[in-house]
Amino acid sequence: MVELGFNVHRTTGAAQTILAGVGTPEHFDVAEFKVLDGVHDAYRISSPYKLAGRNFRPEGTKIKFPNGVVVGGEEVVIMSGPCSVESREQILLSAKQVKAAGAKFLRGGAYKPRSSPYSFQGMGVEGLKLLREVADETGLLVITEVMEISQIEVMLPYIDCFQIGARNMQNFNLLRELGHVRKPCLLKRGIAATIEEVLLSAEYILSGGNYDLILCERGIRTYETYTRNTMDISAIPVLKKLTHLPVFGDPSHGVGIRDLVPSMALASVAAGADGLLMEMHPNPDKAMSDGAQSLYPEQLEKLVAQLRQLAPVVGRKIA
Amino acid sequence: MVELGFNVHRTTGAAQTILAGVGTPEHFDVAEFKVLDGVHDAYRISSPYKLAGRNFRPEGTKIKFPNGVVVGGEEVVIMSGPCSVESREQILLSAKQVKAAGAKFLRGGAYKPRSSPYSFQGMGVEGLKLLREVADETGLLVITEVMEISQIEVMLPYIDCFQIGARNMQNFNLLRELGHVRKPCLLKRGIAATIEEVLLSAEYILSGGNYDLILCERGIRTYETYTRNTMDISAIPVLKKLTHLPVFGDPSHGVGIRDLVPSMALASVAAGADGLLMEMHPNPDKAMSDGAQSLYPEQLEKLVAQLRQLAPVVGRKIA
Amino acid sequence: MVELGFNVHRTTGAAQTILAGVGTPEHFDVAEFKVLDGVHDAYRISSPYKLAGRNFRPEGTKIKFPNGVVVGGEEVVIMSGPCSVESREQILLSAKQVKAAGAKFLRGGAYKPRSSPYSFQGMGVEGLKLLREVADETGLLVITEVMEISQIEVMLPYIDCFQIGARNMQNFNLLRELGHVRKPCLLKRGIAATIEEVLLSAEYILSGGNYDLILCERGIRTYETYTRNTMDISAIPVLKKLTHLPVFGDPSHGVGIRDLVPSMALASVAAGADGLLMEMHPNPDKAMSDGAQSLYPEQLEKLVAQLRQLAPVVGRKIA
Amino acid sequence: MVELGFNVHRTTGAAQTILAGVGTPEHFDVAEFKVLDGVHDAYRISSPYKLAGRNFRPEGTKIKFPNGVVVGGEEVVIMSGPCSVESREQILLSAKQVKAAGAKFLRGGAYKPRSSPYSFQGMGVEGLKLLREVADETGLLVITEVMEISQIEVMLPYIDCFQIGARNMQNFNLLRELGHVRKPCLLKRGIAATIEEVLLSAEYILSGGNYDLILCERGIRTYETYTRNTMDISAIPVLKKLTHLPVFGDPSHGVGIRDLVPSMALASVAAGADGLLMEMHPNPDKAMSDGAQSLYPEQLEKLVAQLRQLAPVVGRKIA
Repeated sequence: MVELGFNVHRTTGAAQTILAGVGTPEHFDVAEFKVLDGVHDAYRISSPYKLAGRNFRPEGTKIKFPNGVVVGGEEVVIMSGPCSVESREQILLSAKQVKAAGAKFLRGGAYKPRSSPYSFQGMGVEGLKLLREVADETGLLVITEVMEISQIEVMLPYIDCFQIGARNMQNFNLLRELGHVRKPCLLKRGIAATIEEVLLSAEYILSGGNYDLILCERGIRTYETYTRNTMDISAIPVLKKLTHLPVFGDPSHGVGIRDLVPSMALASVAAGADGLLMEMHPNPDKAMSDGAQSLYPEQLEKLVAQLRQLAPVVGRKIA
Repeated sequence: MVELGFNVHRTTGAAQTILAGVGTPEHFDVAEFKVLDGVHDAYRISSPYKLAGRNFRPEGTKIKFPNGVVVGGEEVVIMSGPCSVESREQILLSAKQVKAAGAKFLRGGAYKPRSSPYSFQGMGVEGLKLLREVADETGLLVITEVMEISQIEVMLPYIDCFQIGARNMQNFNLLRELGHVRKPCLLKRGIAATIEEVLLSAEYILSGGNYDLILCERGIRTYETYTRNTMDISAIPVLKKLTHLPVFGDPSHGVGIRDLVPSMALASVAAGADGLLMEMHPNPDKAMSDGAQSLYPEQLEKLVAQLRQLAPVVGRKIA
Repeated sequence: MVELGFNVHRTTGAAQTILAGVGTPEHFDVAEFKVLDGVHDAYRISSPYKLAGRNFRPEGTKIKFPNGVVVGGEEVVIMSGPCSVESREQILLSAKQVKAAGAKFLRGGAYKPRSSPYSFQGMGVEGLKLLREVADETGLLVITEVMEISQIEVMLPYIDCFQIGARNMQNFNLLRELGHVRKPCLLKRGIAATIEEVLLSAEYILSGGNYDLILCERGIRTYETYTRNTMDISAIPVLKKLTHLPVFGDPSHGVGIRDLVPSMALASVAAGADGLLMEMHPNPDKAMSDGAQSLYPEQLEKLVAQLRQLAPVVGRKIA
Repeated sequence: MVELGFNVHRTTGAAQTILAGVGTPEHFDVAEFKVLDGVHDAYRISSPYKLAGRNFRPEGTKIKFPNGVVVGGEEVVIMSGPCSVESREQILLSAKQVKAAGAKFLRGGAYKPRSSPYSFQGMGVEGLKLLREVADETGLLVITEVMEISQIEVMLPYIDCFQIGARNMQNFNLLRELGHVRKPCLLKRGIAATIEEVLLSAEYILSGGNYDLILCERGIRTYETYTRNTMDISAIPVLKKLTHLPVFGDPSHGVGIRDLVPSMALASVAAGADGLLMEMHPNPDKAMSDGAQSLYPEQLEKLVAQLRQLAPVVGRKIA
């Protein structure tokens, strides 16, 4: 331990001795101590992230968007729209419907990560252009997923917020590049990521100088198969405690079943979420992807009305 | 399949043939079909529980308790108290505090299931007597955990509701005996139980003729270690859809960290819970078990006040 | 910490202070320290089990059975037979087949824990008598599952080893009673039990004075659905390191698919298992339970022949 | 269903009707059927991967490497070396040691995916050059991890096999690019990937025309914390059944604890693995990453000697 740059403090008990290393060596792995002869166990006590920690900005991070929308303040912000951009008609109608319901952001995938190479992969740059057009037409902001470093430059002119999907939460090269961009990002929790890993991935982006970062709980993989994922609602208040970054909930991916989405959206805001990301499709039964978890337009409208009533119970309001 | 008593229907496609078995054979295991030569996969399509299914009582089950409290109706019912009964003073003070906060039931363990044989195991029948005494004194009902068949008779005179703990959710002999009792039960989800298994365990109790059964989500085991368990809030609306039985949430065991309990209690009710089971201790720092997840009395009081505001948003009120 | 009976040692660093409590207070819960103001995190460093620890008997526990079979020595012991006793013919034929293959124990359930109350529940005491009869006739020992305290006395005259199923691994009242019996037990790992919890449950039996205990890995519940469970082969060498108790593998429940059982049996012995518990049925396609995971008699025979070749590679032989 | 291009077959029972869709529509999501009114549940019966399926090449895929090494044949192939390339001395000594032990491939990371941005990130192209040099000097092949599309071209001149790490198993853009390369790849199972998802990711590479692909089990994330991951040994025989591609085991990441690696390596080969990927470091206590799971040189040597004895039991030999 001394070799690694620690100051060592010794505590001796009847049956064992505890060595505490104090200091901040650059490189060390706590597992290396676990395997030493005579060592029963070893723990890392200080947290391995710095810029993402609540202490770094105890008052919380507020992210200001072009049209005056603020994420991380008193207002709970709704982002909604279809899983994929499919056509001008579809995305324009979606935009009008989410705007009418009360959303501030239009979501919609132009590049789609799909488990199978034979599934629909998105419209690409054509989709980005449509998103920008209809968002401007309806007075919304645009959030869409970036999957690859080469897409960053392409996307910049068209969007207001980069979405980093669950499968890319540990695509460290992508995260590092997004740290150098001056555009807000929303980072989704990986399907098997611990809360600490979410914060370490956030650290990749923050350490590049991009502080406009939103975190998003979207369901984790467990043994339960009834729902698509198990939405870890407790991650919302836990993250709010550990970090200064705004925290969203994505109930659509969280449970994957349309009729459960409203309950989980209400639960997310009750638990302290700063916003919601939800899939809505003008005609979910014809959607090219994620139809089963997309709300009908009238469900979204009814839900936002309920959220308006619920938000004040936890000291918030709907933007 | 014919030997098992199925009528078999055949569907032939280009690359495979589907055989559908129709009927209700007593004994069969879908896994047995999976391993046959030439079989790609096999599924059970009808649900294996009957009495627990929503169809059996589409209007929902309402359970009436002695003092007029109804579980499963419009009112959300609060059950609270310490993890263990420790002394007359402690449980009397607890009863007064939970009553003042708005709870209808006093909880408290007389028999404690503990992972380690060296942990405090409960006061036994002495604890049961204290629970009854102080509940009568304060106008509360009593719920406490039953661990063993031999305890059922002992407990009957003292309690209003049997609690079946997560570790006993598949103690089928115990469940079967409780099916023959005429006293309500609350069945907690096992730490790794699927929603279907919860309903099959419920079926053991219902099939004995005891229909006064409450189900309770209390957190499942996942890879995340920050919280004690991962509370599966989505299980609440899922169970409400699949079964007619009332569904509670137990945020204390769900997350295991006091300061997260209020957020998870609010989320549970927002998601449709019929009631809450929560640990409160007059002095959590001195509690003999579960102190870390027990609310302070003033936290419970503040929380119930918030719940009173939230319940109407989802068409409910606090009992 | 002082109030709880610890001697406290303090280590002060630039950013935080570490307090180490030395001593052995009877009751304390490490989680209680985690929630105190100003505490970042808390760990328990000494292990919470004592009699089960490797240190207690560094040379390892050897269990001697009536006919000279020793579990925990150089020999790897095979236990096999059908999931359930179904009839005299079925269990006699099973006994002859497992004996011929090289097994030393006949397994077979007389009392069956079944998720559904409508599934076959076992033959009860009639099944116990048949097990004893055919085992004596063929020169085998008997292992069968105990589900309930009241069954212990009933079973004692008929069996050589109690099997405690995964669902009862934390049925602490049952464990405590089995600690007072003078007959070996085999304790299966619960479906979501940690290795530490297995050892704590073992401690319940050992602390009653019954040291003839075998532990058994039988698959844990994960998100993977292709296999019935995920067999945690690494639990075998981990347990061998942490405890002096013999450790078995149960590949039948571990994977639940007949054709994978031989590979997992070989893997278990390669990883250091002291024995195997495997389901075999004279006619798996007609089995009343677990047919899909039961080996054909000829598969068992071929497998044991392979195991005889493999065992010497890891310094063992087949009994 | 008809709109999607299915031929529909109807099976009517007393309580429900089953509709079977036959045909091969391009785009559909089984979840969309689950949410329709009146639908109890829906299943996809044909497998969603084609080129990766065992049927596509029933005899199995053999991959031929420059120096005559064949992966997927009778011989079990060992790949070993340090987690990271740290210096010329370190990697040359490593190469000599793994060669002496019997390995055919030298592994070592030049680009390192690290959870924290503050951990050592690898030597980059300098590391690639060192790998090639010392491999040529010692007569070994080179396998190393590719994290990013832009690295593919850079790496091509220096390596014999691309390794795709667990975190990139669903980095679909990277997979698609590697499908267009004519160089073998080894694809690691994601930390929470199902077996079906592994095969769908394989399909991305195969569908680009690159058939020289090895799959690798390296541990999945479960609730158990004693080991770094839970190595799913059963995935090896399952994959061997479902696909024609060779399947490796990586016990180093599988368990993350040096002293468990030999047991898990033996178990992998006993269960049918075509090869092993294992970390070894000349001086694990000084390693810059993964020291705790790296074997000592003498451990590797002893292990390979044991593997030579074990392989014939399952009809194989060590290359």
